[in-house]
Amino acid sequence: MTRLKMGMVGGGIGSFIGDVHRKAASIDGMIDLVCGAFSSSTEKSLASAEALGIPKERAYGSFEEMILEEAKLPEEERMDFVSIVTPNHMHFPPAKMALEHGFHVICDKPMTLTLDEALELEKIVHSSGKVFALTHNYTGYPMVKQAKAMIAKGDLGDLRKVCAQYLQGWLATSVEKTGQKQAAWRVDPKKSGIGGALGDIGTHAENLVEYITGLQIEELAADLSAFGEGRTLDDDGNILLRFDNGAKGVMTFSQIATGEENNLGVKVYGTKGSIEWYQENPNELTVRWLENTKQIFTPGGNGGYPESSDYVRIPAGHPEGYLEGFATMYRSFAQELLNVKNNQSQSASPDFPTVKDGVRGMKFIYAAVESSNNNASWTKI
Amino acid sequence: MTRLKMGMVGGGIGSFIGDVHRKAASIDGMIDLVCGAFSSSTEKSLASAEALGIPKERAYGSFEEMILEEAKLPEEERMDFVSIVTPNHMHFPPAKMALEHGFHVICDKPMTLTLDEALELEKIVHSSGKVFALTHNYTGYPMVKQAKAMIAKGDLGDLRKVCAQYLQGWLATSVEKTGQKQAAWRVDPKKSGIGGALGDIGTHAENLVEYITGLQIEELAADLSAFGEGRTLDDDGNILLRFDNGAKGVMTFSQIATGEENNLGVKVYGTKGSIEWYQENPNELTVRWLENTKQIFTPGGNGGYPESSDYVRIPAGHPEGYLEGFATMYRSFAQELLNVKNNQSQSASPDFPTVKDGVRGMKFIYAAVESSNNNASWTKI
Amino acid sequence: MTRLKMGMVGGGIGSFIGDVHRKAASIDGMIDLVCGAFSSSTEKSLASAEALGIPKERAYGSFEEMILEEAKLPEEERMDFVSIVTPNHMHFPPAKMALEHGFHVICDKPMTLTLDEALELEKIVHSSGKVFALTHNYTGYPMVKQAKAMIAKGDLGDLRKVCAQYLQGWLATSVEKTGQKQAAWRVDPKKSGIGGALGDIGTHAENLVEYITGLQIEELAADLSAFGEGRTLDDDGNILLRFDNGAKGVMTFSQIATGEENNLGVKVYGTKGSIEWYQENPNELTVRWLENTKQIFTPGGNGGYPESSDYVRIPAGHPEGYLEGFATMYRSFAQELLNVKNNQSQSASPDFPTVKDGVRGMKFIYAAVESSNNNASWTKI
Amino acid sequence: MTRLKMGMVGGGIGSFIGDVHRKAASIDGMIDLVCGAFSSSTEKSLASAEALGIPKERAYGSFEEMILEEAKLPEEERMDFVSIVTPNHMHFPPAKMALEHGFHVICDKPMTLTLDEALELEKIVHSSGKVFALTHNYTGYPMVKQAKAMIAKGDLGDLRKVCAQYLQGWLATSVEKTGQKQAAWRVDPKKSGIGGALGDIGTHAENLVEYITGLQIEELAADLSAFGEGRTLDDDGNILLRFDNGAKGVMTFSQIATGEENNLGVKVYGTKGSIEWYQENPNELTVRWLENTKQIFTPGGNGGYPESSDYVRIPAGHPEGYLEGFATMYRSFAQELLNVKNNQSQSASPDFPTVKDGVRGMKFIYAAVESSNNNASWTKI
Repeated sequence: MTRLKMGMVGGGIGSFIGDVHRKAASIDGMIDLVCGAFSSSTEKSLASAEALGIPKERAYGSFEEMILEEAKLPEEERMDFVSIVTPNHMHFPPAKMALEHGFHVICDKPMTLTLDEALELEKIVHSSGKVFALTHNYTGYPMVKQAKAMIAKGDLGDLRKVCAQYLQGWLATSVEKTGQKQAAWRVDPKKSGIGGALGDIGTHAENLVEYITGLQIEELAADLSAFGEGRTLDDDGNILLRFDNGAKGVMTFSQIATGEENNLGVKVYGTKGSIEWYQENPNELTVRWLENTKQIFTPGGNGGYPESSDYVRIPAGHPEGYLEGFATMYRSFAQELLNVKNNQSQSASPDFPTVKDGVRGMKFIYAAVESSNNNASWTKI
Repeated sequence: MTRLKMGMVGGGIGSFIGDVHRKAASIDGMIDLVCGAFSSSTEKSLASAEALGIPKERAYGSFEEMILEEAKLPEEERMDFVSIVTPNHMHFPPAKMALEHGFHVICDKPMTLTLDEALELEKIVHSSGKVFALTHNYTGYPMVKQAKAMIAKGDLGDLRKVCAQYLQGWLATSVEKTGQKQAAWRVDPKKSGIGGALGDIGTHAENLVEYITGLQIEELAADLSAFGEGRTLDDDGNILLRFDNGAKGVMTFSQIATGEENNLGVKVYGTKGSIEWYQENPNELTVRWLENTKQIFTPGGNGGYPESSDYVRIPAGHPEGYLEGFATMYRSFAQELLNVKNNQSQSASPDFPTVKDGVRGMKFIYAAVESSNNNASWTKI
Repeated sequence: MTRLKMGMVGGGIGSFIGDVHRKAASIDGMIDLVCGAFSSSTEKSLASAEALGIPKERAYGSFEEMILEEAKLPEEERMDFVSIVTPNHMHFPPAKMALEHGFHVICDKPMTLTLDEALELEKIVHSSGKVFALTHNYTGYPMVKQAKAMIAKGDLGDLRKVCAQYLQGWLATSVEKTGQKQAAWRVDPKKSGIGGALGDIGTHAENLVEYITGLQIEELAADLSAFGEGRTLDDDGNILLRFDNGAKGVMTFSQIATGEENNLGVKVYGTKGSIEWYQENPNELTVRWLENTKQIFTPGGNGGYPESSDYVRIPAGHPEGYLEGFATMYRSFAQELLNVKNNQSQSASPDFPTVKDGVRGMKFIYAAVESSNNNASWTKI
Repeated sequence: MTRLKMGMVGGGIGSFIGDVHRKAASIDGMIDLVCGAFSSSTEKSLASAEALGIPKERAYGSFEEMILEEAKLPEEERMDFVSIVTPNHMHFPPAKMALEHGFHVICDKPMTLTLDEALELEKIVHSSGKVFALTHNYTGYPMVKQAKAMIAKGDLGDLRKVCAQYLQGWLATSVEKTGQKQAAWRVDPKKSGIGGALGDIGTHAENLVEYITGLQIEELAADLSAFGEGRTLDDDGNILLRFDNGAKGVMTFSQIATGEENNLGVKVYGTKGSIEWYQENPNELTVRWLENTKQIFTPGGNGGYPESSDYVRIPAGHPEGYLEGFATMYRSFAQELLNVKNNQSQSASPDFPTVKDGVRGMKFIYAAVESSNNNASWTKI
């Protein structure tokens, strides 16, 4: 099997999400990190390369340099794709340039700083003919796949009600004033965009809900708040949802939910049954039935669909976690690249979130902010 | 100890809630059921009395008869109070008459059919000088008391966010068309009032939230739905909440949440900590802290406050349930009656829900229906 | 319905188990407490009667007095049965005397102080023709009934493995030296018999295992310990089990398991499926299957057998607890007494633990102590 | 950072544990797989190498060939260490040869086929001066580290009681007769040794208990069973334990526990507190206290010790799983090799299981089999 070569933008040593991407990319043995513009400081980029065992000549001081220099290398040597793990405002520029220079792209979420950028990026992706993936990693969990498959097959009947939550507490105090870098850029509209927690985690909840249900949120009524002193972006929100099939729902998210760690969860109710899943305990899917006894599905366990068990790396009872779910993004992306390398056409419905999901996430952010500015009036997505 | 004598309106043999009230009233050995107008049919009332071991001369064919006849009995023989366990439309008439004839009243919720009735009842209670209790039984659980006490003492800091849910699935299909009596009256506006699930379980969630937090919901934006075919009353709802201290919240309730049994739950987030509690697993209270390790409190367990452990009947680890929480309503009500019998004045803040809570619940129903009729516009309670 | 009249031996105000018996007896409205020898002190017995609303002429200073005096009363007035809630050494004398004077008996466990007493009591019960029940209350939980029914129907196939635990921590320190009465008699062989934790809670585990599985423990190898300073009776034990069908098992119990409250649990594995249940969360029964998805049964919930749901007092999702399980003992006992009153013969397999279970429990205690004294050698029960 | 080069013995494509080792080795970016004797068939070994992206000249037909050929390569090219992932009978030969040819070794458990081999291997490791690690991977979970640290610091006081379980159901039927390779060698004494489930999973439980508690099992009384038709090795066992500090315990393990997936769990009770942990839900550690409220620790969460949080790769609430725990074995082993490469001496107490743990595991197997053959008589380890 040919292994794919990855170049990284951002993610210098010490960053949270860069390290996650690297580990996730490595788990399935399909991808090697070969170069990076790990920092806007050449010195720091070099230090990161050194620590990561990457030759210094492939540690670049900027994404522009990386893209230009790598493009000059012989095909069998140069990077196959770019992984973008910078704050939001630095997603669009490297994505655009990489695509335009013939590199595939995998990018962290939310996709861009603004909706305009998102719409432009969508055009660029299509015109480039390159593969673009967005790491809405929570869709990679086997039990999320199981829920999606059960709903798609009609096991739950017609869907009527959706409850989603994404609760964190790490911004309960003003940590952005203490030099915490992760917090600092997230509360800064110039780097985050118009959504705070909304963009950072609300989009995950939105994506998860639409992924599992196959429905689209048609309109919403959002009440966003900024509890943290001096914050201009939301750090908490409650949203009423109406779906395109007539289902109703509610979403709550927060980064000031004191004591919560990473409590993403979803409940979906249909006429025949319902599902319940939580990211912090990802290897259980609770399914309730109209007439039968409640069931607990597990990855690779009895009764699971192939749509789920195909994503399980280890036997039932051996818990997989966040990194494995994330790795599934990379594995599916890598598989698509290998297909393309083998002169197959791109998949019409690839097995990872795409630029379309990215646009949808940005529209969700914009609709929620507009609704909240209008005192939670109903706003179409 | 003098035992108190209870007369019951409604609750003939076979009824769900009548039996609950009887069991709850009996647990602590303070109350004897001595008479009842168990049914509007004298024959059925007699049969119920027979089954319950009550002499037939004290089985009445109507609440009017019961109140008038009991009032004629010598004081040491006649009932001390009336327990009203009928559908909503039959709360106000017997409550009013009982109070006006000098009997204390304990009544199921929601308090009345209409807000006007509620406001009138409030006046009657005050002018009667009698004790009136409303069985919002979920406030009787020891872990609810613990949560309330922790918040009152400031353990959680300033409250910012509240999430409440009350999810049932028993109306997921049109059971009201199958002769199920419980369902039939609940979907009938003439018997239920203007709220369906809203009145039946939404008011429990509202009461629980205000009880635990000590806050009041100031305004709300409600999206109510009737999913069941032909239903005119809501069987599902999602509500945005704003509290009088600036906290925000969200409430979701449903009786079409397929597979759910009686999933009432609440999460409250403050600046220093947060609590999470579910009625189906009532003997655990999860408390998360800004800086300390997550804790699980149990009734009578280590670290519980007296405000909670005083309500525990059996040692830690011996689970108490729904009936015990309900019994706490009766015990506190009975204690108040004994005080009054001993010529003490009524407590200014009695240890059970009162007519004030009942009025508040009706206002909540009316505000939510008005908001929903206005497409979820913000409406003051 | 005729209500039954109960006389109580022991259980003065302030006692733990006496209060439990009273509440349990009252829940289903079939039994009235009419008299008691609540304490060996006449004064204390009177005070208890007063607090319980029992006329002072029926508060007795000794069980002998109670039995003799009650026997003189007209049949429609005198107690129907005696409830014995004293420490172990005071079970046999009142049980024997009550039976011999024509009263039915319901008695706390373990049945007697010694095995000899147990064997003698068995004879007395049979010759008396009276009903005798032993309150192994944990068999009253609906999910225990469900497990038993599933096994009896063969749902789990042939049973192969049983794991039982009963873990408490309340004797982790020397509370018996602090004036704690509950602890004091339990560590005193003159009052407890030859088993400490073994008799107090080990017998519950033994009874539960045999009740659920329908198997008998054939032999055991026990390693008992007394960790508490100065204790002569065991406060901890681990036991290997061999059953009469060839199944193997293990039991662990302890009263020095620091932090544990009342953690009784059981797992049973058959060739087709298995069950898992814990007393502290009694409304869930986990069932694992050879080929199907794991299920969670709930009282009155979907898929439960009538053998379980017939014991549920309130709809699914309304948790029942320890008192309700205990109440089921009293209700079944009361029903048997009513049958006998109606001149029916005693049930061949009554729906409550009998003197036979009591003898078995005492044999279990004696076998375990003998085994432990022989360094955990295999010992037949 | 220099990356280390790994050669693998066994683990051809399609094997369970070989793939686990590869993924685990790759997660932290310190190790590259460079060669392998993936199968005793050269053809299959080549196919595996191809699929893994390894040049065919480094796919060997036998471990002997691999060791001899790699030894001839220049130091900067040849493998640094051998990872042995074959069935038990093929652990000792490659380990011995690798060590004797100057390669470090990381090996799956149980360490060897026989105790004699284990003792000989211990000598070889010492005389070779090479590093040897044994993948008792469950000690790599952060919550296991937390439990160990709390006990080591005395937080739980003096330990008194230990309960361990390892329950699987995958051998509940005779899958070894269906061509299932994993099952086939495990029930074959020539490949597994004298222990069946005992060696396969019992040793994990033994290792975990001794790792967490810092105690040693001094003697045991084992009742082993072979329920599967025609099996000569145990597939189930129950063991009484006595520890070197006077603590008592019980262990139960099974591969015929129908419906169980990989239910390894441990409870440890001390005079001041106790811990409870389960592998299937590895990111929660329950801690109960003599006097304080029960706590739930999470990886990287509030209140965790550095001894635990240093092993957490991602922020609290992002679950890590089996592969991450396994990866910790490889990371610690790799760090030790890097130290040795930098001319540091080997750590006196390395942060991974060593040959000493391997010997102890084999002694545990031999003691348990001997005890069981003597009808569960006490046997020293």
